[in-house]
Amino acid sequence: VIDYEPPADPSAYSFTHRVRVRFAETDAMGIVHHAAYLPYLEEARVAYLKAIGHPYQQVRSEHGTDFAVIECRVRYLRPLRFDDEVDVHLELGAARRASFAMGYLLTVDGVASCAAVTEHACVDETGRPNRLPDWLRELAAAPRADRVVRPTA
Amino acid sequence: VIDYEPPADPSAYSFTHRVRVRFAETDAMGIVHHAAYLPYLEEARVAYLKAIGHPYQQVRSEHGTDFAVIECRVRYLRPLRFDDEVDVHLELGAARRASFAMGYLLTVDGVASCAAVTEHACVDETGRPNRLPDWLRELAAAPRADRVVRPTA
Amino acid sequence: VIDYEPPADPSAYSFTHRVRVRFAETDAMGIVHHAAYLPYLEEARVAYLKAIGHPYQQVRSEHGTDFAVIECRVRYLRPLRFDDEVDVHLELGAARRASFAMGYLLTVDGVASCAAVTEHACVDETGRPNRLPDWLRELAAAPRADRVVRPTA
Amino acid sequence: VIDYEPPADPSAYSFTHRVRVRFAETDAMGIVHHAAYLPYLEEARVAYLKAIGHPYQQVRSEHGTDFAVIECRVRYLRPLRFDDEVDVHLELGAARRASFAMGYLLTVDGVASCAAVTEHACVDETGRPNRLPDWLRELAAAPRADRVVRPTA
Repeated sequence: VIDYEPPADPSAYSFTHRVRVRFAETDAMGIVHHAAYLPYLEEARVAYLKAIGHPYQQVRSEHGTDFAVIECRVRYLRPLRFDDEVDVHLELGAARRASFAMGYLLTVDGVASCAAVTEHACVDETGRPNRLPDWLRELAAAPRADRVVRPTA
Repeated sequence: VIDYEPPADPSAYSFTHRVRVRFAETDAMGIVHHAAYLPYLEEARVAYLKAIGHPYQQVRSEHGTDFAVIECRVRYLRPLRFDDEVDVHLELGAARRASFAMGYLLTVDGVASCAAVTEHACVDETGRPNRLPDWLRELAAAPRADRVVRPTA
Repeated sequence: VIDYEPPADPSAYSFTHRVRVRFAETDAMGIVHHAAYLPYLEEARVAYLKAIGHPYQQVRSEHGTDFAVIECRVRYLRPLRFDDEVDVHLELGAARRASFAMGYLLTVDGVASCAAVTEHACVDETGRPNRLPDWLRELAAAPRADRVVRPTA
Repeated sequence: VIDYEPPADPSAYSFTHRVRVRFAETDAMGIVHHAAYLPYLEEARVAYLKAIGHPYQQVRSEHGTDFAVIECRVRYLRPLRFDDEVDVHLELGAARRASFAMGYLLTVDGVASCAAVTEHACVDETGRPNRLPDWLRELAAAPRADRVVRPTA
C-alpha cells in the first residue's frame, strides 16, 4: 500500500475529465451502483494519459507495459444519479520503482461525491514487474504545480 | 441471419442452467437491466459446452477457435428482479458451415421471462472464419431427442 | 415484433452520438464484449431524447412513463476495440399505439461496425402499458427529412 | 473509515460462497477486470445474509434499511481468469452505531487472489442514517467462533 491521500480540494488536481452517468450504471436503489465508479476512474485515467502525450495504447504497445490495478480504495460520499455530469479530478499521486498511485475526487456541480485512490503496478505481458517508464518517474518527481495538464480535446 | 426460432416450451430444450440475479444487475427501474441478460446467456452457453464435454477454454486453446457472437435477438417478456432464480433453457438451434445459432428460454418458477437467440461465427485468432468443429456439426445434425444433456454439476 | 429495418447508410439517420470505448468494456478476445454495446445504444437514445427537447428524466417524472426495452436485435459486423471512437447513428424507426422501435448504425471512421434495433413499450410505474406521448407519435408520423436533429451540446 | 483488517487465513472466515468467472468479466489483458470483483463481494454478502436468516430483500422491505456501500478497499493479489472457481470467504468485521464493515478473502484452489473490505451505512429510503438492526449489532458483538455459518444452499 502506497501512503498517499488524495486532496479534498478539486482545484488541487492537475486534470479533470467529465463523464455522464448512464442509466445502465444505476441500480434498484435508484443511484449509481458502487462498482460502476471504477470504470469512471479508468476512463479519466485513459484521458489523462492521452492529454500528457502518453496514450495507454502506446504504453502497452511500445513499452510493453500494462498498468495493472493492484489496489483501489473508494469512499462514496454522496450518491450519483442517472444523467449526472460528473467531473473526475485526477492526479498522479506518488511513485515507487515499479508502482504508482493515482488520486481522484469526483464532483457534481462542484460538490464532492467520491474520493478514490488506485494503485498500479507496471507489468509486462506475463505479469512480471517492470520499472516505471522514465516519463512517469519524472512526472511523479516534478513539483505539483508543474504537473497541471489540460485536455487536448 | 440464421432462420431459427427458439421453442416456447421449456421442456423442448436440451439443457438448463440456473443463474441468480445480482443486485448489481438491476437498474433504477427496480428490475434487471436489459444488457445484463447477455452474460446470463453466455454463462449458460459455457456451462452447456462443459456439460457436453467441450469446455470453451479447450475449444479456444485446442481448436484455435472462438465462437464470436455475430448476432443476438432478445425478447424481454417479464421483468427479472433482484435475487430471482432464473432457469436458462438452451439448445443448439441450427448450424451452417462456419456459424451456428443457439436458442434460449428464461423462466422463473416455470414462467417465461425472456426468449433469445445468439448467432456465433467460428473464427481464428485473427478473426477469420473457421469451419465448425466436427463435434458441433454432428451435434447440430442429430435429432433433437439425442441432444439432451444433463449438467455434470 | 415491429417490422422495421434500420438503414445501412449512416447519412440516412437523424441523429449521431459519439461514445469512446472503455477498457472495462473489452473482453479476453481483445475486443468489446457483445453485451457492452447495449449501453452505447442507450446512451445515444438518452442524448437523442435530450436533443429533441424531451429528456428521459422528464419523460419519467412528468409523463410517468418508462420506455421499457421489450426487444433488441443486434448484428455485430466488425469488432470494436479499446479507445475506438464510435459514432452511434440513430433514428426513431416506427411507432404503434403503445410501443416504438429505434434503429441504430454504429460506425468507426465511417465504417459500419454494428446495426441494431431496440423496441420499447411505454409503461407506467407498475409496468402497465401507456399510450405513446403525443410528441412521440407525431414525430414518428413526420416524414424522415423533418426528423433530423442536432445535438445541443 | 472503520479500523478493521480482514484475516489473511481463509479458515478464519465464518462463511464461504463460490462464484465462477464469466467471460464477460474479463478484459483485453485476458484477466478479470478490477471492477468485476465488487459484484462478487456483493453476491457473497447477499448469500451470507440469506444463510444467517436475514435475506437482503427482507432487510429492505421489513426494516426499511439499505446497507449502502460507503467505502471499499480492494487489494488484487493474483489475476483471476475466465472460468476460475473463486471462493469468496467473508466475515462481519466490525460494527458501529449506524455502519459496519465486512471483510473478504478470495481464493482459487486455496491460493489467495484478492483481499477486500466493504463498509456499509444503514440508511432509510431517503438516504438518512438508520441504527443497525438488533441482530446485526448482536452478531458483531459475538465472539468470532460463534459467528460461523454454513450456506443453506
